[in-house]
Amino acid sequence: MSAAGEAGTSPVGDVGRMTGFSDGVFAIVITLLVIELRVPAHRSGELFDGLVEELPVYVAFLVSFGYIGVIWLNHHTLLRLIRGATLGLNWINLWLLLGVVVIPFPTAVLADAFDHGGNDHDRRVAVLLYVLTAAAMSAPWLAFFSYLHRRPELLGEGISAAYVATQRVRPVTGMVLYLFSGALGWFVSPLVGVIGIVVMIVYHALTSEGVRRRRPPRRPGRG
Amino acid sequence: MSAAGEAGTSPVGDVGRMTGFSDGVFAIVITLLVIELRVPAHRSGELFDGLVEELPVYVAFLVSFGYIGVIWLNHHTLLRLIRGATLGLNWINLWLLLGVVVIPFPTAVLADAFDHGGNDHDRRVAVLLYVLTAAAMSAPWLAFFSYLHRRPELLGEGISAAYVATQRVRPVTGMVLYLFSGALGWFVSPLVGVIGIVVMIVYHALTSEGVRRRRPPRRPGRG
Amino acid sequence: MSAAGEAGTSPVGDVGRMTGFSDGVFAIVITLLVIELRVPAHRSGELFDGLVEELPVYVAFLVSFGYIGVIWLNHHTLLRLIRGATLGLNWINLWLLLGVVVIPFPTAVLADAFDHGGNDHDRRVAVLLYVLTAAAMSAPWLAFFSYLHRRPELLGEGISAAYVATQRVRPVTGMVLYLFSGALGWFVSPLVGVIGIVVMIVYHALTSEGVRRRRPPRRPGRG
Amino acid sequence: MSAAGEAGTSPVGDVGRMTGFSDGVFAIVITLLVIELRVPAHRSGELFDGLVEELPVYVAFLVSFGYIGVIWLNHHTLLRLIRGATLGLNWINLWLLLGVVVIPFPTAVLADAFDHGGNDHDRRVAVLLYVLTAAAMSAPWLAFFSYLHRRPELLGEGISAAYVATQRVRPVTGMVLYLFSGALGWFVSPLVGVIGIVVMIVYHALTSEGVRRRRPPRRPGRG
Repeated sequence: MSAAGEAGTSPVGDVGRMTGFSDGVFAIVITLLVIELRVPAHRSGELFDGLVEELPVYVAFLVSFGYIGVIWLNHHTLLRLIRGATLGLNWINLWLLLGVVVIPFPTAVLADAFDHGGNDHDRRVAVLLYVLTAAAMSAPWLAFFSYLHRRPELLGEGISAAYVATQRVRPVTGMVLYLFSGALGWFVSPLVGVIGIVVMIVYHALTSEGVRRRRPPRRPGRG
Repeated sequence: MSAAGEAGTSPVGDVGRMTGFSDGVFAIVITLLVIELRVPAHRSGELFDGLVEELPVYVAFLVSFGYIGVIWLNHHTLLRLIRGATLGLNWINLWLLLGVVVIPFPTAVLADAFDHGGNDHDRRVAVLLYVLTAAAMSAPWLAFFSYLHRRPELLGEGISAAYVATQRVRPVTGMVLYLFSGALGWFVSPLVGVIGIVVMIVYHALTSEGVRRRRPPRRPGRG
Repeated sequence: MSAAGEAGTSPVGDVGRMTGFSDGVFAIVITLLVIELRVPAHRSGELFDGLVEELPVYVAFLVSFGYIGVIWLNHHTLLRLIRGATLGLNWINLWLLLGVVVIPFPTAVLADAFDHGGNDHDRRVAVLLYVLTAAAMSAPWLAFFSYLHRRPELLGEGISAAYVATQRVRPVTGMVLYLFSGALGWFVSPLVGVIGIVVMIVYHALTSEGVRRRRPPRRPGRG
Repeated sequence: MSAAGEAGTSPVGDVGRMTGFSDGVFAIVITLLVIELRVPAHRSGELFDGLVEELPVYVAFLVSFGYIGVIWLNHHTLLRLIRGATLGLNWINLWLLLGVVVIPFPTAVLADAFDHGGNDHDRRVAVLLYVLTAAAMSAPWLAFFSYLHRRPELLGEGISAAYVATQRVRPVTGMVLYLFSGALGWFVSPLVGVIGIVVMIVYHALTSEGVRRRRPPRRPGRG
């Protein structure tokens, strides 16, 4: 490993610290979600009703937990592509973690807007805030893949530049579909926007190990 | 290590990140418990009485700390079984961590219900909530062992498939006994249900290094 | 490394996870201290006076940060003694981390009791609570050294059993002096008790790399 | 690695734990920033206005996130200079982390002072508090470089003592310019002080891989 800053080009460092720092951020974000779960205020003998009334909060917690988990799986796959980290990749990773840290906020705004008594205009605004944040969160993933495409020497063993190029499909799809969901939420109905958001979470869950190009002839040997 | 997503079958990755992320989650959950400990409100000269009054809170804190610690020890033993992590194992691990993150919530509901002035019906509900959560927490452990049983190539050196198969006894026992404790708590007395819960924590503490089959002839060689 | 639970004797595992989990706990405890620092309530133009009034809080924060830091340094030295972790050591380490997580609580009680308007009896109680907690915190350190003394095969390269035996002096000194400080605080004056507590923090800072036996002849070779 | 405390000189240990602990602290500090982001209180149908009103809070969050990120990048570069950690370096690192943990506090005071209705004198005080904290934060970085300069045997492969000596320019520049910003903020205008603070963050971002001496002849070989 070359010394930081000693050389003319950006030096290549260990992936370990980027990983450790990222895992710390993911672990804290996913654990802090539980703070929303509180003993429901209830009259004596009505704990059951109190718990049932809070059901939407518990469902929202599960969805958020699942979503952060899915992003972690995606990030896990992402860092397995590289064998070294540069200053550029560290910056992109910080940008990516910004999205992870921020996402509980528009989620809370969305949950608040769809709570009983919410206003239709507020719901449109909440959907828009969410999809704009989510679309902005997709940008660093595209930047990461593009950076790797330009610097194939950073790729881990057995990772082809073509594979990395293909992965750019995911964040681009994400940005387009999030904005589309936002348009549906604004012009058609906020509920349709929310459905679009849930579809996107499922999409990211299904592609967490990367999208695959169709490869008609299967190469021999173990995966 | 094969590249993520390059191959037809699910690729095998490093256990390191699964471990780091899990340890982060465990560390945060076990540390956040301390937030419940507050300087007791008291009149001047009555700090001692204030502290004594809060004693149940301190005992609950110690039990919770012990329980999360026991789950960590179990998880520690669990990850020592494997030499690689797949997407499937990462999903199961996320499910397992969901239980770790959630468990302080039904614990708080239980403590609240048994506080002075609690209602007997609420106590039954609280016991039921706890045992249902705890039983659901056992499911991913069963899934983990079953997954390993089907894919023995993931096992670490010196770990036999038979050993892994035996470990399935633990989560199944956990689920059965938790549901039994819940039935006792509901139909007999909520206090009996709580005793069942404490017995389960002790059971998990005692078996944190795995259950052992009886092996009459001792194989030679170092442990 | 032998497989967990496969053998008759307690198996020896990696120190890595014990370290990672402990570092997570230390990092969270030391960071959560900052939550006490809040923008002081003040009238317009009197921010400076507001900050000055909060000075005791800031000093308490610095002392707490320093103390947790000192415990971390001690723990760092502790784990460098061993080359493997057993279930027993993991239990002792959990017990030790319990002390790390708990210590901000008696510290807060102490700070509250010495705040303006505190009562002398409450101060004695607060000093007693602190020294009892701190003495109990020393116990797992003694247990750790005693455990290693009985199982020298766990010692890292170049660590002698005699060195480990000597280290038991530290927690024993800690327990005795904490209880002595408590007696002074109870029978003489709570302030004297606090001075004893501060002396103990300094003692642990100075011995964070372990106590040394006097060795008249210096062995050759690099340190 | 020599055993802790066995030798006469300060023993050299692994950098791994210093890194893991530091990453934990950075991860928690950068994640806790998000707690400031709350669903804005608003009347039904006025969520958009509520969000717009909170815009300064969101900008402050982004700046803080960016600043902690920049300090992490600098710390990342810092630890890449060394191949081992001594007790002295661990102490300096704790001091450095104190700055990381503390910085959100003067930032909050600054944000509060510049909120609508703030008083000019309070703003001067807030700028002074910030620059004094930030200048004090620079001191451990200077201590780290100076320590390495005196003990070149701790330097990683390919890191020259001359390079390390040059790096001392950064914290010294930081301290001088922070104090200069404070003087401007106090005697000219608090807003000028804030501009100086922002310039310093940018300076630290641009030099996160270390300052480079001018080297007219480029050595051959890869970076």
